[in-house]
Amino acid sequence: MTEKTKLINPRLPRGFEDRTPGDIAAVGQMIETIRKVYERYGFDPVETPLLELTETLGKFLPDTDRPNAGVFSLQDDDEQWMSLRYDLTAPLARYFAENFETLPKPYRSYRQGYVFRNEKPGPGRFRQFMQFDADTVGAPGAEADAEMCMMMADVMDALGLGGKYVVRVNNRKVLDGVLEAAGVTSDEQKLAVLRAVDKLDKFGPEGVKLLLGAGRKDESGDFTKGAGLDEAQVATIVRAMEGEFAQPDEAKLVLDSPYRSANEIYVSNRRQFLLDSPLYREGMEELDTMRKLFDAAGYTADKIKIDPSVVRGLEYYTGPVFEIELTFKVQNEKGQDVVFGSVGGGGRYDGLVSRFRREPVPATGFSIGVSRLANALKLTGNLGSKEPIGPVVVLVMDKDQTARYQAMVSELRKAGIRAEMFLGSTKNFGKQVSYADKRNAPAVVIEGSQEREQGILQIKDLVVGKQAAEGITDNAEWKAARPGQFEVKREELVSAIQKLLSE
Amino acid sequence: MTEKTKLINPRLPRGFEDRTPGDIAAVGQMIETIRKVYERYGFDPVETPLLELTETLGKFLPDTDRPNAGVFSLQDDDEQWMSLRYDLTAPLARYFAENFETLPKPYRSYRQGYVFRNEKPGPGRFRQFMQFDADTVGAPGAEADAEMCMMMADVMDALGLGGKYVVRVNNRKVLDGVLEAAGVTSDEQKLAVLRAVDKLDKFGPEGVKLLLGAGRKDESGDFTKGAGLDEAQVATIVRAMEGEFAQPDEAKLVLDSPYRSANEIYVSNRRQFLLDSPLYREGMEELDTMRKLFDAAGYTADKIKIDPSVVRGLEYYTGPVFEIELTFKVQNEKGQDVVFGSVGGGGRYDGLVSRFRREPVPATGFSIGVSRLANALKLTGNLGSKEPIGPVVVLVMDKDQTARYQAMVSELRKAGIRAEMFLGSTKNFGKQVSYADKRNAPAVVIEGSQEREQGILQIKDLVVGKQAAEGITDNAEWKAARPGQFEVKREELVSAIQKLLSE
Repeated sequence: MTEKTKLINPRLPRGFEDRTPGDIAAVGQMIETIRKVYERYGFDPVETPLLELTETLGKFLPDTDRPNAGVFSLQDDDEQWMSLRYDLTAPLARYFAENFETLPKPYRSYRQGYVFRNEKPGPGRFRQFMQFDADTVGAPGAEADAEMCMMMADVMDALGLGGKYVVRVNNRKVLDGVLEAAGVTSDEQKLAVLRAVDKLDKFGPEGVKLLLGAGRKDESGDFTKGAGLDEAQVATIVRAMEGEFAQPDEAKLVLDSPYRSANEIYVSNRRQFLLDSPLYREGMEELDTMRKLFDAAGYTADKIKIDPSVVRGLEYYTGPVFEIELTFKVQNEKGQDVVFGSVGGGGRYDGLVSRFRREPVPATGFSIGVSRLANALKLTGNLGSKEPIGPVVVLVMDKDQTARYQAMVSELRKAGIRAEMFLGSTKNFGKQVSYADKRNAPAVVIEGSQEREQGILQIKDLVVGKQAAEGITDNAEWKAARPGQFEVKREELVSAIQKLLSE
Repeated sequence: MTEKTKLINPRLPRGFEDRTPGDIAAVGQMIETIRKVYERYGFDPVETPLLELTETLGKFLPDTDRPNAGVFSLQDDDEQWMSLRYDLTAPLARYFAENFETLPKPYRSYRQGYVFRNEKPGPGRFRQFMQFDADTVGAPGAEADAEMCMMMADVMDALGLGGKYVVRVNNRKVLDGVLEAAGVTSDEQKLAVLRAVDKLDKFGPEGVKLLLGAGRKDESGDFTKGAGLDEAQVATIVRAMEGEFAQPDEAKLVLDSPYRSANEIYVSNRRQFLLDSPLYREGMEELDTMRKLFDAAGYTADKIKIDPSVVRGLEYYTGPVFEIELTFKVQNEKGQDVVFGSVGGGGRYDGLVSRFRREPVPATGFSIGVSRLANALKLTGNLGSKEPIGPVVVLVMDKDQTARYQAMVSELRKAGIRAEMFLGSTKNFGKQVSYADKRNAPAVVIEGSQEREQGILQIKDLVVGKQAAEGITDNAEWKAARPGQFEVKREELVSAIQKLLSE
C-alpha cells in the first residue's frame, strides 16, 4: 500500500460477474419458488463444498463434445489435487456413496449453488454460474424419471410460465437403438448424428437430412459438414424422428379414441418401429411407463411431450433424458426470431455412483440453469427486477450534532423503518439530497440549528418531490414551492415517516 | 466407468464438510434474521464471484501472523492467476474501485458467502466457511464505525442473544500510540505485545505482565516466551490496559454523576493518559465520538464496551476495531469452562481501496463467522436444528398400479401436501414403511388389490403409531391393534391427510 506508483487495475477475470441488489432479490425470489415445489415433491436439501478431490469428481462433463470443456484444478499444501465442482451431480454421487449406509434409499435431494467451467467465456456464457438440481438416487424405475419431468413442469407453472414451456422427453436407449439399426458404429459418426438430430427444431427435417448426409449450406453460404451417412441410413434415422410418428395435435384427439392422450398415440406408433432392436424396445417400454404416469397425473403433451429429437449430452446418460424448453420467441444476436430454448434438463445416469461402489446404483435427476431461467422470467415479466426501496436518510446539517441525528435514526430503526444518518464527508445540502436520491430513499429528514431551537424537523418526501418537480421548470418557483417538504415536531418523527411510507 | 477393478474412495478433502437439511434450514433462518437488521440499517446486498484475479485480491489476510495462512490459487487456460477469495473484504474493495463512478457514496453494502483458506484444518477450523459481512465505503468519520458496532449489537439482540454478548471496541491508533510511548519499535516485538494484550481476558493482568516481560509458564509447565520488554515498558502498557482506567460498573454509576455512561467515564479517564502522543489522542477522540453516539442511541456498556484489550488482526486495520464476544461459558476440549468468545468483528481499513485508486478511500466494516455463530445459537437453544417433516409416502403395493399411486400423489401435491410415491426397488411392505420412518414421514398410504376393489385406502399415521408402539411389547398384540392405522374412502384421501397433518 505504500508503493504509490503502481496502481492495480480493479477488474474481474473474464467470464465472471458481480451481482446487483435487483438481481439478487429477483433470483432469490425465483429460487424460493422452485424450492417450495421440490419440497412438496418430498425432496430434502443437501449442500456439498465447492471444492472436491479431483479423483472423486472425475471428468463427467455433460457436454464433453465441446472443445476446451474443462475444470479448474489446484493443489493444496499437501500437494493433493482438488477441483472446483463443474456441476452438482458429480459431488452428489460422491456424497451418496460416502453416506450410503445412513441415507434413506431412494434418496431424494435438491441443491443449489455455483459451478465452474474452465473454458472460454462468451456472451451469456460464464465461467461461474448457478444451478439448481434435484436428484433421486437408488430408484431404478422410469417412475422416478417421470416424477422428474412432472416436477420440472410444476416448477415452470409455479414460476408463472404456464403455456410458455414444454418438457421434452426421450430415451438414450431409443437413440442408441436407432443408431444401431442404422449401422452407425464409429463414435465420431454417432456424435455427428446426435448433433444433427438435436437440430430438428432449428433446421427442420430437411435440414437434419442434409446434416445426416453430405452436409448443409446455410443462407450465408457457410457449409457444415454432415455425418456422411448413406441414403438408407438417413432414411432409418429420419423415420425414427418424424413422418408417420409425428406428434398428433392433442386438440384434435377425438373423444372416442381408444387413446387417452397425444403422448399415448405417439408412443404407441413409435413402438411399432425397430421391433428387432432390444435396446430400442426397452427404451420405448420405459417411455410408455412414463407416459402412463403423465396421463394419470393429468400432464398433457402441451406440458410434457415425448419427443424423439431430444439428445441432451453425450457421455453421461443411460436411459430417459429430458429438457425444459421455453417456447416463446426472442430475438437472437442477428435480430432473428428464435425460441428461447432450453433452461434446464437432465436424465438417468446409472453409472455415476458405481465409480465408488461395486453394486449398481441407479440415479436420475435434473438441473436448472438459474441465470438463464431468471433472464427468461425477466423477459416474460414474471420476475421483478426493480431496485429495492432505499432508507430514510437523516441529513447531517451540523457536524457537532451527529449524536442527535443518530438518536433519530435509532428511533426510526427501532420502529422497523430502514433509515440511516448521512455518513459522507460533504456538508453540502444538495449533495446529501443527491445521495438520498441515488439510494432511492423515500424521504430525507432535516434538522438545522433553527429547527433545533424550535424543536421541529423538516421532512422532504422525495417521491412526491420528484413527481411535483416534473411540472416545475423554474428554479425560483421550485424554491418557493419546495414540493413534498413539510414540517413536524421532533417527537412526531416516527409517526410522520410511517404515514409518509404508507402513502 | 467400465474399469470395474479400481474403485474410488468417496471422500472430501480435509477441512471441507457437507451440510445436512437441519443445518441448512437453521443457518438459513439465522441469515435471514441478520439480513433484516442489515437492511433496516440501509445496507443493500451485493455479490461478487468466488474467484478473483490474484493481483486484484492481494494478500491482506486479517491474520497473517498465523503460519501457513494462505490462499488457493490456480491458472486458467490463458495462464492468468486467479485465487479463491479468502475473505469478503478484498473483493469488495475491488468492486468499489471498479464501480467507483456509479456507486452512491458512502456505499453501504452487505454480502454473505463462502471464503477459502489454504491452511491446515483443525477441529472446528475449516478451509471453506461462510462469512456474512457489512461495510461502509467512503465514510471517513468514526460515526460509520459506531454504526457498525450498533448494528452488530442489534444483530445479536435479533438473534435472541441479548445479555449474552458484548461488542468490544478499541482503536488501532490508541494501540500504536501506546507501543510508541513504550518505545516498542521492532515489528517482532510489536506483534508479541499485541498478542500478549489480546490474552487479557484469558490470563488476567498478571498473566499479560509476564507475557510482556520474560515469559509465562502455564499450569502444565509449558513455557511461552514473552515480548522481552523492560519493567518501565511493561508498566506503560499495563497502565494503558487497566488499573485506574478499569471499566466502572455501570450499575454503580451514581445518578447525579456528570457522566451519562460507564463508557463516558472510561474514555474520559483514558484521555488523560499519554497526552503527548498525537496518535493516541487521535484514537481516543475517535473512541469518544463513537461513545457519544452509543450514549445517544441508548447502547450501554453491557452491550457495547470500549475496551483497551481488543487487538483484532495485525496488518489490516487503520482506526477503530471491534469484536463481538459471546460471554456465556462453554467447556473447551480439556473440559475447562471458558467464555464462548468471538463470533465476528471488524474495523476501519482505509488502505484497502487505495491499492486501486490514487485518492484515499476510507472504509469500515465487519464480518460474522456464520458457522461459529450458528454453533453458539444451537448451544443457547436459539436455533432449531430439528430435521424437516418428511413427505406422506404412498406405498407401491402392486408394481402394475403405479399410475394409480401417481394419481394419489399428484392429488396430495396439488393440495400443497408434501408427498411421494415409493420409488425403491423393494416390494417388501416393512421395508417401504421403514423408508417412510427414516424420512420422518407423518403417514403412509396403502392401496392393495383388496382395497382397490372396495374403493378404499389404508392410512397409517406414523406419529401416532410410534407413540402407541411404545406401550406394546408383544408382536401379536401389535398386529391386532395396528395402532394409528385407519381406513378411508379413496376420494377422501386429501381431506383425511389434511386432518391427520393438522392434529
